[in-house]
Amino acid sequence: MTETLGSTGEFGLIAAVTKSLPQGEDVLVGPGDDAAVLAVPDGRMVITTDLLVEGRHFRQDWSSAYDVGRKAVAQNLADIVAMGARPTALVVGFGAPADLPTAWALELNQGLADEAELLGASIVGGDTVQSDKIVVSVTAFGSLDGRRPVLRSGARPGDEVAVVGRLGWAEAGFTVLNRGFRSPRSVVEAHRRPQPPYAEGPRAAIAGASSMCDVSDGLVADLGHIAVASEVVIDIRSAALAVAEPLQAVAAATGADALAFVLSGGDDHALVGTFEPADVPEGWTVIGSVAEGNEERPPGTVTVDGQPYTSTTGHAHFRN
Amino acid sequence: MTETLGSTGEFGLIAAVTKSLPQGEDVLVGPGDDAAVLAVPDGRMVITTDLLVEGRHFRQDWSSAYDVGRKAVAQNLADIVAMGARPTALVVGFGAPADLPTAWALELNQGLADEAELLGASIVGGDTVQSDKIVVSVTAFGSLDGRRPVLRSGARPGDEVAVVGRLGWAEAGFTVLNRGFRSPRSVVEAHRRPQPPYAEGPRAAIAGASSMCDVSDGLVADLGHIAVASEVVIDIRSAALAVAEPLQAVAAATGADALAFVLSGGDDHALVGTFEPADVPEGWTVIGSVAEGNEERPPGTVTVDGQPYTSTTGHAHFRN
Repeated sequence: MTETLGSTGEFGLIAAVTKSLPQGEDVLVGPGDDAAVLAVPDGRMVITTDLLVEGRHFRQDWSSAYDVGRKAVAQNLADIVAMGARPTALVVGFGAPADLPTAWALELNQGLADEAELLGASIVGGDTVQSDKIVVSVTAFGSLDGRRPVLRSGARPGDEVAVVGRLGWAEAGFTVLNRGFRSPRSVVEAHRRPQPPYAEGPRAAIAGASSMCDVSDGLVADLGHIAVASEVVIDIRSAALAVAEPLQAVAAATGADALAFVLSGGDDHALVGTFEPADVPEGWTVIGSVAEGNEERPPGTVTVDGQPYTSTTGHAHFRN
Repeated sequence: MTETLGSTGEFGLIAAVTKSLPQGEDVLVGPGDDAAVLAVPDGRMVITTDLLVEGRHFRQDWSSAYDVGRKAVAQNLADIVAMGARPTALVVGFGAPADLPTAWALELNQGLADEAELLGASIVGGDTVQSDKIVVSVTAFGSLDGRRPVLRSGARPGDEVAVVGRLGWAEAGFTVLNRGFRSPRSVVEAHRRPQPPYAEGPRAAIAGASSMCDVSDGLVADLGHIAVASEVVIDIRSAALAVAEPLQAVAAATGADALAFVLSGGDDHALVGTFEPADVPEGWTVIGSVAEGNEERPPGTVTVDGQPYTSTTGHAHFRN
């Protein structure tokens, strides 16, 4: 008989999960008490939270439990590094039905732990409850190590816009999965398990990034958040955007627009930032520029090749 | 037509919610960026997280949105004060169906904000997603203000066990609601909106509590956590436990055992701790004592009047 959460029980699951979680030296009190205690030598804590719901953010027939765990942590740690911070710790809430195989929960946990381990971040606590659909909430913490945070509001006219990491791969993967296909494998894998360019966040902060965010809603949408917060206009040069071969293949096979994957696809968690021209870090690609707004293009506007761009994909919850 | 989350949209909801959230002076970056930044002058951060799921932790026909918000924050802040810490901030994840009236989400938010406001804690960030059932995840933070954390593992033989706050009221309220009644009003209100004795947590820490936790699983179960972590045995004297009149009324009307509400009922978030006899703070009630384990009563055992106690209610997820 398959062991389920109903037979393992809440405390059995917690015991199995916490024993496999390594704790870094900044963890003063780890899992098992009313709360955890984390050392914060910088005197400032960077905090972000995300909720993943089965059927909305993942499907059990598309992603393994391990992949869901990797992705849940990745999307949070991408937010931490997008502030220029170094991820240090996480807490996890987990809701699932009683008939879920215990192995699923343990594989999820392994995925959470392995993604956190990439950056030496510790899982310091959590909560486990019963729920009809699987729900995973992750709250992640980071240290600025003495630096100022890189906000969305710091872009200045004359800055260049630069990006690092993949754009559109996860969206292309979602497109093929949604049509019942499993290839190209590279984009399907990108949907299942994002690979944010973690190290580039702190690196961009040290290089002097004036603003930064991770690309989770889509490039145009996320640059829109920067343009609004910074009260500037941003123009993207589409010729500067590489459209990788697998994206072109998916576009050709599905009748989609390959450039739309790049401009509107979220969930790869690339990093996009603005820099004075001399400050753009090596390895980042300059894809546009920041200017002052005017009557024709008011502050907050994002254009592509000087023209308004209407997103056809991209993420906005509650509107399906 | 009633406005719903579908018509308000994710960004509309976030804008409406964040504008009503006061930010304390330790909030360096509040809602609206990739992550929040919180000042942590103590150099240590106390962290706890909880997930509330509709149909498991609350029912829309039993509790108002406002009550759900108060309760979600209260159960987290109770964990923070149970470490002897002062709550400083929270982040909130919110999942809901697109047809949920926007007013429900705004009332929930008001409940979250009002409970946080009781302690001067700021809601510094969050996430909003679509989900079939309503899900609320809260992660709360606290400061030890230079004190050591009060753990579950510090109880010592010879300590007295003392409690402050209500026991069994929420469970009695759950019992009457579960049978279709709405009175006694006092216990129904206690189920809807716990009133943890917040100030007593830091006060107990200053008084020298050797161990402490909040009562969320039930008094016997939570003292069991202390007994296991501290490798001691704990005996509760039932005569020391006040069984309030409304609990007796519910027991008489439903054929339940009033003392069982007090011994096994969770969700009032009373605080229970252990102290050297001279250290028990004024206002706390001594209800038992800590001793060394022996062959007959191994470490980790909790007894009531010297006898084993089998919980009939109490909380254990995945076993219904």
